[in-house]
Amino acid sequence: MATRTAVIHLFHGVEELDAVGPWDVLAHWTQRHPEDGWRVLTASSSGEEVAAAKGLRMRPDGVLAEHPAPDLFLEPGGRGSRPLCADREHLGYVRGAAASGALMTSVCTGSLVYAAAGILRGRPATTHHLAYGELAAQDASVVVRSGERWVDDGDVVTSAGVSAGIDMALYLVGRLAGAERALEVQRAIQYDPAPPVWG
Amino acid sequence: MATRTAVIHLFHGVEELDAVGPWDVLAHWTQRHPEDGWRVLTASSSGEEVAAAKGLRMRPDGVLAEHPAPDLFLEPGGRGSRPLCADREHLGYVRGAAASGALMTSVCTGSLVYAAAGILRGRPATTHHLAYGELAAQDASVVVRSGERWVDDGDVVTSAGVSAGIDMALYLVGRLAGAERALEVQRAIQYDPAPPVWG
Repeated sequence: MATRTAVIHLFHGVEELDAVGPWDVLAHWTQRHPEDGWRVLTASSSGEEVAAAKGLRMRPDGVLAEHPAPDLFLEPGGRGSRPLCADREHLGYVRGAAASGALMTSVCTGSLVYAAAGILRGRPATTHHLAYGELAAQDASVVVRSGERWVDDGDVVTSAGVSAGIDMALYLVGRLAGAERALEVQRAIQYDPAPPVWG
Repeated sequence: MATRTAVIHLFHGVEELDAVGPWDVLAHWTQRHPEDGWRVLTASSSGEEVAAAKGLRMRPDGVLAEHPAPDLFLEPGGRGSRPLCADREHLGYVRGAAASGALMTSVCTGSLVYAAAGILRGRPATTHHLAYGELAAQDASVVVRSGERWVDDGDVVTSAGVSAGIDMALYLVGRLAGAERALEVQRAIQYDPAPPVWG
């Protein structure tokens, strides 16, 4: 039985791939290896269906408040991140999860929400390459690490934009369960990316 | 106004990333550049919510039969592909879309469905690296191209497993709208993948 829970936040305006890339990676691991003791689920503030940034509609597994102290929390980005930066209830959730000892992870502009919640104070972090300034504007003490795919600062791991969430999620599987597991997932999703090269 | 329609098939057991990777790429392009005249939407056989392979629930934009002659059709893979290979109604849809001149594209085991529909007869194609044998078993005349991220055979473009759909979708944007557009999307989703390297 799963004794540790990873929660991926779904919200209106979440960037589809920010959430679904890590979902596919983490769910592959937890479902193939229940003996590792982890499960991953999606949750939104209300539990209702969300309309993502490009219009895809996804229905979460549950309600955030039902999981106040997850073992891992993942905040994806997307244009819906900006309202979240001013959402006192959600910022309270983030602070509570961090205070409870959750491994706090983010993709893309999800780190803006963490900065707004005050959990990146004086710490290294990254975000989408077009949002470095926004991250600094949320909290000038954040040490913005441009040009990295993900930044591991112990109990907070932030990644760069959109597809970088896949890289970070593979890294998290390796950190939590070992390189063998991460390589198994990487092979399963055939992640030897080769984007087209345009002459 | 959009004059050309790309349809991404959602079905029970669809691999989440097979569908959402290309969705994010294609939707980014079509929504930022409506002047290119394309739109992208998701559709399922019934129009109802689907439970994807790892449990994510997604609600499609519409019903496949409402789009019998899309300009581009994308068949993702996942364990739900296998029932589709024996689904006479869906195979009829695939044959009809191909006959109408749609650009037929697939990710992962989506190509098994194309083989079952008979549209890969004697043609080069690829699939997930663990499904080469299954592809040949559906149609022994398919020229299985192992080790390629995607195979462009004119009106049929097939990709390798899961994350290869992102590479193929970027290629499709380039083919349909030019390298500039594809590069713009690639930058937006920050697709300079760097999976962790395990010692």
